[in-house]
Amino acid sequence: MTQHISSAFDRDLETLQALVVKMGGLVENAILEGAKSLEARDIDGANAVRKGDKVIDALEEQINEEAARVIALRAPVSKDLRTLLSVLKLASNLERMGDYAKNMAKRTPILAEMQPINGTDAALRRMSKEVQSMLSDALDAYVRLDADLAEAVRQRDMDVDQMYNALFREFLTFMMEDPRNITACMHMHFIAKNVERMGDLVTNMAEQVIYMVTGEMPDEDRPKMDSTAAARTGQ
Amino acid sequence: MTQHISSAFDRDLETLQALVVKMGGLVENAILEGAKSLEARDIDGANAVRKGDKVIDALEEQINEEAARVIALRAPVSKDLRTLLSVLKLASNLERMGDYAKNMAKRTPILAEMQPINGTDAALRRMSKEVQSMLSDALDAYVRLDADLAEAVRQRDMDVDQMYNALFREFLTFMMEDPRNITACMHMHFIAKNVERMGDLVTNMAEQVIYMVTGEMPDEDRPKMDSTAAARTGQ
Repeated sequence: MTQHISSAFDRDLETLQALVVKMGGLVENAILEGAKSLEARDIDGANAVRKGDKVIDALEEQINEEAARVIALRAPVSKDLRTLLSVLKLASNLERMGDYAKNMAKRTPILAEMQPINGTDAALRRMSKEVQSMLSDALDAYVRLDADLAEAVRQRDMDVDQMYNALFREFLTFMMEDPRNITACMHMHFIAKNVERMGDLVTNMAEQVIYMVTGEMPDEDRPKMDSTAAARTGQ
Repeated sequence: MTQHISSAFDRDLETLQALVVKMGGLVENAILEGAKSLEARDIDGANAVRKGDKVIDALEEQINEEAARVIALRAPVSKDLRTLLSVLKLASNLERMGDYAKNMAKRTPILAEMQPINGTDAALRRMSKEVQSMLSDALDAYVRLDADLAEAVRQRDMDVDQMYNALFREFLTFMMEDPRNITACMHMHFIAKNVERMGDLVTNMAEQVIYMVTGEMPDEDRPKMDSTAAARTGQ
């Protein structure tokens, strides 16, 4: 491969990277604004998050097409091909995170009509902030091809899982204390579980970055901390 | 491209297809057996589903590697490349369905210690059966490149959504009737939502098959029937 073709490929990768970073920025914003509008019962803010998801989806489409174009045009092999396939995975994870943020925003007008459940909005916002910050680092790790930073993101998923577990138990308690809390708690729990899943998706992205850099997927040694499958409270 | 190379590529596609069909069969089995063991409180059955997920994950890995190998070796363009990238998406959707089935199995030992919630196990089993049957058709549509069959699968997702909505309301009612039902209902609701998501994933697969055959993604005209975001019961 000549120098000329190689740098054309590098430019292709930079174009794709710019699209992924742009998409990631929009997803970061959707997570934060989604959680803030929920806490503030700000229905306009929530509607903006819902509408913004279309732009995120369109960017994934554009990344898919651009990557396919580059593969067809440059016929990359080994590391280059691995990078391109990883970019597709990154975009797919971002798209799913965007969906979860949209789902949070969809529930905001409903929850706005109900009594807030003592402090759980703020706990959700903190959890969302943590996921947004992990995503920001995962995107940096991708741009800088920094496997150590990606590994650090991966380890932080435990904190999100612990926040989720604590919230799950709070919801159970509030529901048992007063059945009038049940509907709101069901919605809030949905949202909390989705934020926890966003943490898993960022973790997937961090693992994809490690794979991109090292050629190997990290081992399955990340402790899974969702202990709610074992909750026996209230029997 | 010579006839010789073209048929080598066809053989590559067949190899990949065989892997996807095998993976799909395992996922179908995991969904059905997951739901059956839950209904029967069969912990050994549930454990088998949990363990089986490793095989499903390994198959996705194998499909990823094989597809990358084919792309690097054959440098496919246009329709051929589209087909290969679609195969990666099919495998990724199957892997996520496998995870949901594993999650259902993980909750079975916990639910086995609780009072069953009046008929909801059977409703979950029927919902799972419907998703498994949709998956079976989606795989057939992929093998036969049958866009009409894929479109039929896509339309059936509404039934799954309706089953889920009905269950969601039942859970709310059971929880309000008796707070001792809350923990079991939270777990059952988790599972129901995951089965509903499996329906969405099969729908993604059907859309991918349509894209593979026609080169175009179907429009977003599929009515979304998850109306629980609007549930205001119990205020």
